[in-house]
Amino acid sequence: MKTFSKEEIQSTDKIFRLNLVNSVSGYKSANLIGTKGKHGENLAIFSSVVHLGANPALLGFIMRPASVPRNTLTNMKQTRSFTINSISEEIIEKAHYTSANFEVGISEFSECKLTPEYFVDCQSPFIQESKLKMAMKLEQIIDIELNDTMLIIGSIENIYVDEAALTDNGQLDLNALSTVAISGLNRYHRVQEIANFPYARATELPHF
Amino acid sequence: MKTFSKEEIQSTDKIFRLNLVNSVSGYKSANLIGTKGKHGENLAIFSSVVHLGANPALLGFIMRPASVPRNTLTNMKQTRSFTINSISEEIIEKAHYTSANFEVGISEFSECKLTPEYFVDCQSPFIQESKLKMAMKLEQIIDIELNDTMLIIGSIENIYVDEAALTDNGQLDLNALSTVAISGLNRYHRVQEIANFPYARATELPHF
Repeated sequence: MKTFSKEEIQSTDKIFRLNLVNSVSGYKSANLIGTKGKHGENLAIFSSVVHLGANPALLGFIMRPASVPRNTLTNMKQTRSFTINSISEEIIEKAHYTSANFEVGISEFSECKLTPEYFVDCQSPFIQESKLKMAMKLEQIIDIELNDTMLIIGSIENIYVDEAALTDNGQLDLNALSTVAISGLNRYHRVQEIANFPYARATELPHF
Repeated sequence: MKTFSKEEIQSTDKIFRLNLVNSVSGYKSANLIGTKGKHGENLAIFSSVVHLGANPALLGFIMRPASVPRNTLTNMKQTRSFTINSISEEIIEKAHYTSANFEVGISEFSECKLTPEYFVDCQSPFIQESKLKMAMKLEQIIDIELNDTMLIIGSIENIYVDEAALTDNGQLDLNALSTVAISGLNRYHRVQEIANFPYARATELPHF
């Protein structure tokens, strides 16, 4: 085992630290967040979308105000709306490059060759190429003062999902959508199911 | 495309809703969180560990007070300490069953046949079988009033990682550790890297 102490993490080269600390949480979700404001459409990749609760149906993600996707924040505040669009293998390179620091007014849709799509009742653009997408209503922005980031919380207004992923009990088969996982800042992964365990009960433990 | 509206999500069967809403964020990290308090050791699986920032090195995860792993919260508050341990293929079934509702005083380590391990300067138990583990200091608990959950924030005190995962630039090769990803509540996945893109610059876009 290699050990990295807090002091070593703090004193190491910045890129090494970014890569390391972005890797340790494990595999991450891969989503594009779409918004529209007075400067036009905006699209940004996020690997921090996380489940907050099923009833009400809430998702969250982490945003750092000083970093590239700040147009996303401005737009969301204007419209109280955003979309979450899953990233499948076919669009990983285009999705990755939405993180480039484009000037305000330049649309990541056109620069990265992804297709905006609008559905009724949602002001924000979806990605036509995405196989699982959600219309979200901005519910709350919680400041995380420890490092000047924010937890953005949205409620699900609508889910649109390719029928290949549907199962009888509501579980989505993300493998069937070729949804990818991210690790660190740059690594994209294909995913293959190896187990689907039942709800765990203390009285029904398997023989390990 | 199949559509689920907010009203359909709210009015559907509870299990269907739990499965669906837990699936839509994409693949999730797979970690076991270890704590120790006056009732002994506690171990609980979490799929919501998320990167908050690299400097200081902060991770967060979502906890719902009313659910099973509440001993984890009690212990963390007592010691201001916890561990995060990655889940690899070899231990997925044992890890899954830590979510069973064991009585207080019953250790998930012994019930699920995982081995507690202690390192200097950390009061909380690690999992010997885990190939990537961190000693964490509890920094802050942020209440999410929208659905009565909490964002638990910890700072990384030490990282312990199997040397198979090390790379020159700090990126960890999680594939080499057979780290798994989770989807929904029950599905466990093997992961295989398909791309490692450079830092995205607007002036260096590929020809999509």
